[in-house]
Amino acid sequence: MPEKPEFQSITWQDGNLQIIDQTFLPDREVYSQLTSVGQVWDAIKNMRIRGAPAIGIAGAYGLHLGINDLHETGFGTFYSESQRIAEYLNSSRPTAVNLSWALKRVLQTIYSQKEKPVSELKEIALQTAITIHEEDERMCKSIGRHGAERVPGNASILTHCNTGGLATAKYGTAFSVILHAHQDGKVKMVWVDETRPMLQGSRLTTWELDKAGIPFTLNIDSAAAFLMQQNKVDLIITGADRIAKNGDTANKIGTYNLAVLARAHNIPFYIAAPYSTIDMNLDTGDQIDIEERDPSEVTGFNGHQAAPEKLNVYNPAFDVTPHDYITAIITENGVIEPDYTEQFERIFNQKIPNSEAL
Amino acid sequence: MPEKPEFQSITWQDGNLQIIDQTFLPDREVYSQLTSVGQVWDAIKNMRIRGAPAIGIAGAYGLHLGINDLHETGFGTFYSESQRIAEYLNSSRPTAVNLSWALKRVLQTIYSQKEKPVSELKEIALQTAITIHEEDERMCKSIGRHGAERVPGNASILTHCNTGGLATAKYGTAFSVILHAHQDGKVKMVWVDETRPMLQGSRLTTWELDKAGIPFTLNIDSAAAFLMQQNKVDLIITGADRIAKNGDTANKIGTYNLAVLARAHNIPFYIAAPYSTIDMNLDTGDQIDIEERDPSEVTGFNGHQAAPEKLNVYNPAFDVTPHDYITAIITENGVIEPDYTEQFERIFNQKIPNSEAL
Repeated sequence: MPEKPEFQSITWQDGNLQIIDQTFLPDREVYSQLTSVGQVWDAIKNMRIRGAPAIGIAGAYGLHLGINDLHETGFGTFYSESQRIAEYLNSSRPTAVNLSWALKRVLQTIYSQKEKPVSELKEIALQTAITIHEEDERMCKSIGRHGAERVPGNASILTHCNTGGLATAKYGTAFSVILHAHQDGKVKMVWVDETRPMLQGSRLTTWELDKAGIPFTLNIDSAAAFLMQQNKVDLIITGADRIAKNGDTANKIGTYNLAVLARAHNIPFYIAAPYSTIDMNLDTGDQIDIEERDPSEVTGFNGHQAAPEKLNVYNPAFDVTPHDYITAIITENGVIEPDYTEQFERIFNQKIPNSEAL
Repeated sequence: MPEKPEFQSITWQDGNLQIIDQTFLPDREVYSQLTSVGQVWDAIKNMRIRGAPAIGIAGAYGLHLGINDLHETGFGTFYSESQRIAEYLNSSRPTAVNLSWALKRVLQTIYSQKEKPVSELKEIALQTAITIHEEDERMCKSIGRHGAERVPGNASILTHCNTGGLATAKYGTAFSVILHAHQDGKVKMVWVDETRPMLQGSRLTTWELDKAGIPFTLNIDSAAAFLMQQNKVDLIITGADRIAKNGDTANKIGTYNLAVLARAHNIPFYIAAPYSTIDMNLDTGDQIDIEERDPSEVTGFNGHQAAPEKLNVYNPAFDVTPHDYITAIITENGVIEPDYTEQFERIFNQKIPNSEAL
């Protein structure tokens, strides 16, 4: 078993949602209580909680918090109000498919039991959020186990952004692969892209690697190419925010850059993500809506100004990596290799298993 | 004629060296008087003055300042003391060939007139520094003129780090190409890599582009790939700190990353640099010594702590771009295309012209 992270990104207790406020890391481990849907929206929007799976979990709890405040009306009114709350929550981070996926799942579960009284439906929303939360932990563990098999001995692994326990219920996605490979004694070094503009790599991933006792070195994003040129990287692994039917993958800005570098240096490039990240409604990555974020993330950092704020800035939060740059996609049910369209269609035409038995 | 920048990075007046302290930009235009060799060493080491050509010019003036303080001894003692001062100055930024080139040139000029009294040799050192300074301005103008011919109409140009008037006597190297192409009405957009860790792009290049009235947009370094994928970049141009005999080029970390991206997207990748950057003593880029800088540049952001300072950090100041990634090298005497070894040997077997007549 991998060493257990000594933190819990999301906890539900006593009717409240508790999160680690990631904007305070790595300096301070601050836990925030979120007691209303507005607070959850704000926490997602301002990246107090971030990482596609964690956003999905928080969104589901947030939907319960919103629903819980609704008056005891008939089902029609109750359900349309619930939908309105879900839409509001979804607007906090439109690119992350896990958020809309989790919100839809709560709504569908409610709808499927519409004959029940509203008071009971409110409880059903909560139970669905708890199920999503627990499933995510099991999925992440499975992703780590499947991915670790692809890691060679004495491996130097490069990763981008944060995909660990902070970004999920526990273990993480790409991070879980690193964690389980480390448990198997196969990790020599983890190269951590600092991940501008929000520095999730230097602030969060280093913090998690340090907690897990995994050797790592921090580098600026544009030094990754030089590392590969010097044969210091054996494989690259990142998470995903949304995967189209053909395997095109939206992830943190800079991921496509790594994929191009990986091909130029003959290095395997893996994506680790649960099935819920795959959006079968999108044929290709061209259809993925790319969120542009505030220029102040680039002109400053953490409130500190580095360049004049009035500058023209291009600040896309994500980029899209075409499927043919991706060696394989590591999921909770195994490693998927190209042709992705074919594989995904086979999988999604079966009943979707939520995760393997553990 | 291009619009004249309204600043002068380096000025010699009344026996003092005056520089713009680049660490205060873009917030404040602070000019510092450097009156001793120690102050010049410190200004180079701490990037108060930066950019390979500007460092060469400042180093030459710094050597004069050091020499000027020497006692009036015989030539032997005077010259070995001068060599010691040159070595000390060179240690402030070992990768920039222009610095050692400028220092050697001052020493050689002194040595060639060793029959003269020491008081006169001190003056000769100063005159040599002034000559290097004036030559650099003419060279930069020539680089801009030659390079602008390679820029197509309505061009979107991506650049990295700062290569403008701040980094040189005036106009710049890669920046001079942009400046002259803009003068010819050919620049639609300049994409500015912010250039972690020291943010020369967001702090300095945007400041110079703004002064020159050239349209630009700032982006994080790892977004450059996504820009190219969207066909938003027509050509890439950067400066150089040292060019080996075969064309391998050391430049600001991140340059090699851009070169790999340029090839993957079929975009021309140009280096702009004066002849003095070419080091015929190095057969290939493997022989270039890569300076590693302080981890605090990466764990901090513009002086503000972003990650724990105790982290393992890899912080090379430069990387090396293999010659076969470089479309052409733009110099003060014209555009050099591969095979670089052949071209350089032809050029350096002739008497080296300092610059074209202007």
